[in-house]
Amino acid sequence: MIIVLKTGAREADIAAVEAKVTELGYQPHTIRGEVRTVVAAVGDESTHSSLEPLTHLPMVDRVLPIQKKYKLISRETHPEPAVVKVGDLTVGNGQFHVIAGPCSVETEEQTLATARAVRRAGATMLRGGAFKPRTSPYSFQGLGEKGLEILAMAKAETGLPIVTEVVREADLELMCRTVDVLQIGARNALNYCLLEAVADTGKPILLKRGPAATVQEWLLAAEYIVKRGNRNVMLCERGIRTFETATRNTLDLSAVAVAKLECRLPVIVDPSHGAGRWDLIIPLSKAAVAVGADGLVVEVHPQPEMALSDGDQQLEPELFARLMEEIGPFVQAAGRTLAAPPPAPAAV
Amino acid sequence: MIIVLKTGAREADIAAVEAKVTELGYQPHTIRGEVRTVVAAVGDESTHSSLEPLTHLPMVDRVLPIQKKYKLISRETHPEPAVVKVGDLTVGNGQFHVIAGPCSVETEEQTLATARAVRRAGATMLRGGAFKPRTSPYSFQGLGEKGLEILAMAKAETGLPIVTEVVREADLELMCRTVDVLQIGARNALNYCLLEAVADTGKPILLKRGPAATVQEWLLAAEYIVKRGNRNVMLCERGIRTFETATRNTLDLSAVAVAKLECRLPVIVDPSHGAGRWDLIIPLSKAAVAVGADGLVVEVHPQPEMALSDGDQQLEPELFARLMEEIGPFVQAAGRTLAAPPPAPAAV
Amino acid sequence: MIIVLKTGAREADIAAVEAKVTELGYQPHTIRGEVRTVVAAVGDESTHSSLEPLTHLPMVDRVLPIQKKYKLISRETHPEPAVVKVGDLTVGNGQFHVIAGPCSVETEEQTLATARAVRRAGATMLRGGAFKPRTSPYSFQGLGEKGLEILAMAKAETGLPIVTEVVREADLELMCRTVDVLQIGARNALNYCLLEAVADTGKPILLKRGPAATVQEWLLAAEYIVKRGNRNVMLCERGIRTFETATRNTLDLSAVAVAKLECRLPVIVDPSHGAGRWDLIIPLSKAAVAVGADGLVVEVHPQPEMALSDGDQQLEPELFARLMEEIGPFVQAAGRTLAAPPPAPAAV
Amino acid sequence: MIIVLKTGAREADIAAVEAKVTELGYQPHTIRGEVRTVVAAVGDESTHSSLEPLTHLPMVDRVLPIQKKYKLISRETHPEPAVVKVGDLTVGNGQFHVIAGPCSVETEEQTLATARAVRRAGATMLRGGAFKPRTSPYSFQGLGEKGLEILAMAKAETGLPIVTEVVREADLELMCRTVDVLQIGARNALNYCLLEAVADTGKPILLKRGPAATVQEWLLAAEYIVKRGNRNVMLCERGIRTFETATRNTLDLSAVAVAKLECRLPVIVDPSHGAGRWDLIIPLSKAAVAVGADGLVVEVHPQPEMALSDGDQQLEPELFARLMEEIGPFVQAAGRTLAAPPPAPAAV
Repeated sequence: MIIVLKTGAREADIAAVEAKVTELGYQPHTIRGEVRTVVAAVGDESTHSSLEPLTHLPMVDRVLPIQKKYKLISRETHPEPAVVKVGDLTVGNGQFHVIAGPCSVETEEQTLATARAVRRAGATMLRGGAFKPRTSPYSFQGLGEKGLEILAMAKAETGLPIVTEVVREADLELMCRTVDVLQIGARNALNYCLLEAVADTGKPILLKRGPAATVQEWLLAAEYIVKRGNRNVMLCERGIRTFETATRNTLDLSAVAVAKLECRLPVIVDPSHGAGRWDLIIPLSKAAVAVGADGLVVEVHPQPEMALSDGDQQLEPELFARLMEEIGPFVQAAGRTLAAPPPAPAAV
Repeated sequence: MIIVLKTGAREADIAAVEAKVTELGYQPHTIRGEVRTVVAAVGDESTHSSLEPLTHLPMVDRVLPIQKKYKLISRETHPEPAVVKVGDLTVGNGQFHVIAGPCSVETEEQTLATARAVRRAGATMLRGGAFKPRTSPYSFQGLGEKGLEILAMAKAETGLPIVTEVVREADLELMCRTVDVLQIGARNALNYCLLEAVADTGKPILLKRGPAATVQEWLLAAEYIVKRGNRNVMLCERGIRTFETATRNTLDLSAVAVAKLECRLPVIVDPSHGAGRWDLIIPLSKAAVAVGADGLVVEVHPQPEMALSDGDQQLEPELFARLMEEIGPFVQAAGRTLAAPPPAPAAV
Repeated sequence: MIIVLKTGAREADIAAVEAKVTELGYQPHTIRGEVRTVVAAVGDESTHSSLEPLTHLPMVDRVLPIQKKYKLISRETHPEPAVVKVGDLTVGNGQFHVIAGPCSVETEEQTLATARAVRRAGATMLRGGAFKPRTSPYSFQGLGEKGLEILAMAKAETGLPIVTEVVREADLELMCRTVDVLQIGARNALNYCLLEAVADTGKPILLKRGPAATVQEWLLAAEYIVKRGNRNVMLCERGIRTFETATRNTLDLSAVAVAKLECRLPVIVDPSHGAGRWDLIIPLSKAAVAVGADGLVVEVHPQPEMALSDGDQQLEPELFARLMEEIGPFVQAAGRTLAAPPPAPAAV
Repeated sequence: MIIVLKTGAREADIAAVEAKVTELGYQPHTIRGEVRTVVAAVGDESTHSSLEPLTHLPMVDRVLPIQKKYKLISRETHPEPAVVKVGDLTVGNGQFHVIAGPCSVETEEQTLATARAVRRAGATMLRGGAFKPRTSPYSFQGLGEKGLEILAMAKAETGLPIVTEVVREADLELMCRTVDVLQIGARNALNYCLLEAVADTGKPILLKRGPAATVQEWLLAAEYIVKRGNRNVMLCERGIRTFETATRNTLDLSAVAVAKLECRLPVIVDPSHGAGRWDLIIPLSKAAVAVGADGLVVEVHPQPEMALSDGDQQLEPELFARLMEEIGPFVQAAGRTLAAPPPAPAAV
C-alpha cells in the first residue's frame, strides 16, 4: 500500500507512520517527493491488515491499495480461460451459448411451449424462474416447488439443461434434484452466505452482477465461490443502476471486456434485464457477441403482454428466432461457433 | 395505469388496447388528445396484472403506473407516525437515539471498552458486527457466535440493547437469544427471503437501504416486513452508489426527508457508511438531525487505526463524545430530545 | 399531461385542479379510479405551460408529462433516416465511417504522421483538438490557432476532412475557415448558446452526449441545432458518469440503440472517451458497430505514452490498423459498408 | 506518481519504466514488493507530463497520481477561510446568507413582489434568471435584457444585490452594469472559457457544481477562476445526477463538508435544484445549515403554480418566511449569524 502524507508533514509525522506500518507487519519505504512524501508499505496486502485506517494519523492524507484482491480467477496468475461444463455442454471455449426461456414459470403450457420454441431456434439451455424475488410484496412471487416440477418436465422433453434462480439456502437440496445451473440473481449478488452455500453444491453457477457492484466487487463475489472449490462459475452482466431512465438499467458492455481481460471465467450477457425493453434486445445481443461475451441469457414468453412478471422485456418466440438468426454472422465475426443444443431425449 | 399511444394510432389500434385492458380486468377510458391519445385503465393496480407489457402492442409508446405500491407503511392511509419499541426505549416519537459501537466485534476488551465509552457519552444502543459480509473473501469475516457472546457481556454490563447484522436465516435462532434489534445490511437490503424470516422473529428491525435502491424500493422492502405482521421497522439511510469518489457512498439526506413525508416509520441515518471517512461524520450527523432523522448509527472503535474492518470510518471515543456534545443544540433546534440510555444493571 | 391526485381527494379538490388546468389553457378530463383520481389535461404540451407546478395544489400527488419534447429529429414524424454530408462523404446511409486522430494537436510531425497512418488504415476523417478544455487549469490547453494551421496542413496532404472541437463562439469565424465538422464536446453538450451559434455556421456538427445527460436531454440538444435550420447533426455517444471506476466513463451502447429507434440522426460512438483505456477500444468498437452505430471516433497517437493529453486512451497506429481490420467482418454483418476516404489531393 | 507493475514484471520491464519516467522529467524510485513492484516517480506533477499514459508499456498495470491538483484554493497551503465581498456584505466569515428570488424573471410585478417579500423575510441578495438555459428549445428562455432591467428596478427599490446566471461571454458587458454576483449555472459548470471570461470581470461569482462533476472537478473549476486573479468565488452545491427519481437530483451535502475541509472558499447550497420539489426545501435547508454551509440559494415565486419555469421547486413567499424562521435555531446551533440585508435605498 502507498500512504500519501499531507503537505507539511515533518520528520516526527513520518516516523509515526513508519512505526505504525511496521507494527501492522509491513516494511516501510519512505520516499520524500518534491511536493509530498509517500510511505510505501511492502508486504502482502491479502495476509495483513489494511492500512486504510492510517488516515486517522494526523498527517496522513490518503492510503492507496496496490494489489488486486482476487487471485484464483485472475488471468495474471492463470492466463488460460476456464471452461465450465454443463452436462455435455462446454462454456468458455469458443462455443457461444444462448440461454432462453420465460422470466417466470407460470404454467405447464407456457413453459413447454417456450422450451420447444427456444430449442428449435437454437437455444442450448432453458431459463425460467420458480422462486421470484419481486420489488413489491404484492406482485407474483413465482410457483416455487411446482415451478421446478414444470421445469423438470420441459427438460425431460427437450433435453435442455435448466438454469434457475436460487433465493435461499433452504431451497438448495430440493433445487439440486432438477436444476443444472444455479443462478444467483442481482439482489443476492453480494449475499456471500448464499454464494458459499451454492458453491458447496458443486453445481455450475450463473453469477449475476449486482446493479451497484463494481467490476472488482463482481469478480470478488466469484472469488468467494471459487475459493470454496467450485470452479464452475459463469459471470453474468445484466446492467447497472445509473441516472438514465430510457432503459431499466444501463447494460455495461465495457465490464464484459474488462472481465474478459482480467479474469478467466466465461461471461454471459443478459440484455433483457439490461434494457428492460423488448425492442432493444436484438441490437444489444449483437453488441454483446461483438464485445466478446461467451453467451446470452434472453427472456422469451409465448404471449409477453400477458406475462405475470417483466412482460415488457420478454421476446415473442418469433422475435427470438429472428435474434438467433441475426446474431449468426456476428458470432462468426467474433471467431466463435454457435453451440448446438444437447440431443433431445429419444421419443418412445 | 395510463397507456400512452404513439402518434398516428388509429381507431383499430385504440380498440386493440381497450380490449387488452378489459381482458386484464381494468376498465378503459380513452382520451383523444391533440397530439396523443391515452387510455386510462381504471382498476386497483395492486390486485391486477401490470399493464406495462402492453408496450408489445404495435402502437403503444409507454405505460405509466399511477399508484404507489406500498400501503401499510404509507402516511396517506395512516398519517400518524409509527413508534418502535426496543425494550423500554421508544424510537419515532420525538426521542433522538444514537446507536454506537464498533464495526466488528474483535475482542472482549475492545467491545467492552467501546460499550462503556459510548454509554457514557450518551448512546442508547450498542451496535457491533459478529457476522461480517466483506467484499473480499480474504478479509476478516467476524467472530460469529463468539462475537454474540461478547455482545451479551457488553449488554449485561452496560444495559445497552444490542443491534447487530443478520446475514442468514440459519443464524436467527441463535441471534434472537441475545440480540435486541436485528439489522438487515446493505448487501441483503433486497433479499426478501431474509426480510421475511427476520420479520417472523417479531424482533425490531433496522433496515438499511440498498446502495442502488430507490426510495420506493427501500420502502417496499419495509412493506415486505410489515406485511408479515412485524411493525417494528426502523429505516436506515446509509448512502447510495454514485460517481463521486471523495466519499465511499453519497449520503442521501433528501431520501430521509422523502421517507419522513411518505411513510410512518422512523428513519435512522448511518453517516459512517455514508461517508466512509471519519472526518465527515460529525458534520453529517448534524445534518441528519436537522433534516429530520429519528436517530443515528455511528461506528466507534477504541483504536480505529488498528481495526480489523472499516477503520477509516470509525471514530475514537473522544471524537464520539464530541459528536454527542455537538449535536445537542441541533437536536433541540429540531424539536426533539436526546433519548436517555436505559439504566445500567445494578452492580452487585 | 396527467395529474394524479392523492388518496382522499374530495370533489372540491378535483374542481380546483380542473379550474387551474382550464386557466392554463388545457381541457380537463377527470377519471375517478378505484384507488386514485386522475385529471387528464388535453392540449399540446409544447405550446402551453407545463402543469408540473400543480404539485403546489393541496391534493395533487404527481404530474406526468405525456408528450416527447423533440419533434424535428423524431422518427415518429419523419421516419426516414437523415443523411449528413461532409464534403463528398455521406454519413447515415449505410456507409460506416471511422474518424481518427490525436486527442490534441501537439506538433506538425505528430499530426501529419497520425493523419497519414489513419488514412492508410481506412479512416475517412481526421480528428484532433486545437482548443482543449482540461479538468485542471495546469494541464496542456491545446495549441489554439497554431493547431488549426497544422490540421489544415494535414488536410491539404491527406484530403481528410477535419473534425475538431469548438469551445467558444468567438473562435467560430476562424475555425470555419479550416474545419469541416465542428465538434461540441462533453463539457459544452448542454451549452445551448454555443449550440445555436455553431448551428448558425451551417457546418456539419458532431454533438457529444453530456456525461450526465439522459438520452432525452441529448436529443433535445440536437433539436436546438436542427430548430435553427441546420440539419447536419451527428450524435456522438461517449460514455456517461456512473459509479464504475474500472473505466473512465460507462459507454452506453443502449443509448445508441434508443437513439437509432427514436431519432433520424446518425450516431457515432467514441470508445476512447467511453473507456478511457486503450486496451478496451477494439472490443468496444466492434460492439458499437454491432449495436447499429454509423461510425466511430477513435484517438490515435504515434507515441501515446508521450502524449500531452489522454495518452492512456490513445491507440498506436499499428493497433489502429488492427482495429480497422478487425471491425471489417462486423461492419459487414451489420449490413453496412466501410466508407472510403476521399481521394488525396493530387501531388504536384 | 506511483506506477504499479503487473505480477511477473522482469528487470528489463522495470528498467524500461524507469527510463521512461526519467525521460519525462521525474526521478524513479523502485520498490520491489512481495507481490508487486512499484515505481515511485518523484517530481512535481503539476509541472510535468502526466505519467498515466505509461499504461501503454507492456508490464504496467496502473498509474496512481498522488498530488491534489488545486493549489490556490486549497486549505493545505492557505488554511484560513476566504471571505467574499458582495458590496458591503461579506460571505464566508460566519455570516449566513440566504439568496432568494424567482427561478425566472417573468414580469416587473412578479419580480418586485418577490424581492420585497424575500427582503422582508430576511434574504440578503436577490436571485432571478434573465437568460435561462432550458432543456427543451420550446420552453420559455427568459426575458434577456428586459429581465436585467427588471432586476435593476428590484435592486433600486430593495437595495438587495442581484445574483443572476450568465450563459455567454457576449452578454458580460451588459450584465456587469446591473449584476452584483455572476452565477455560473450547472450546464456551464465546466465551460472553462466562460469561467475565465467571467473571472476577468472581477465580479463575485457563484459557481454551481456540474451535475456530473466530482468534488475534485468542481474545485478545479474554481481554481480556473482564482488562477485568473479573481478570488471572489462562492461554490454552490446543487445536487448531482444519480439513479434516484424521487428527487430531481441528489443533494450531496457530504460534498459541502468535503469542500469546507479541503478548500478555503465559502460554500452555498441550492436545495431548490437539489430536490426539484418544493416540499423538501425546508428540511434540506436546515441540513445545509447544519453541515456547515455559508448560505443558501432558494427559489421563491408569488404564485409557483403559474411559473414559467421550475414552478414545482419554488416556494410561496409565506413558506419562504417560514423557512427563514425555522432555520434560525440551526444557524445559531452552527455558531453562525444570519446576515442582515443591506439597507434599502432611502425613499424620496
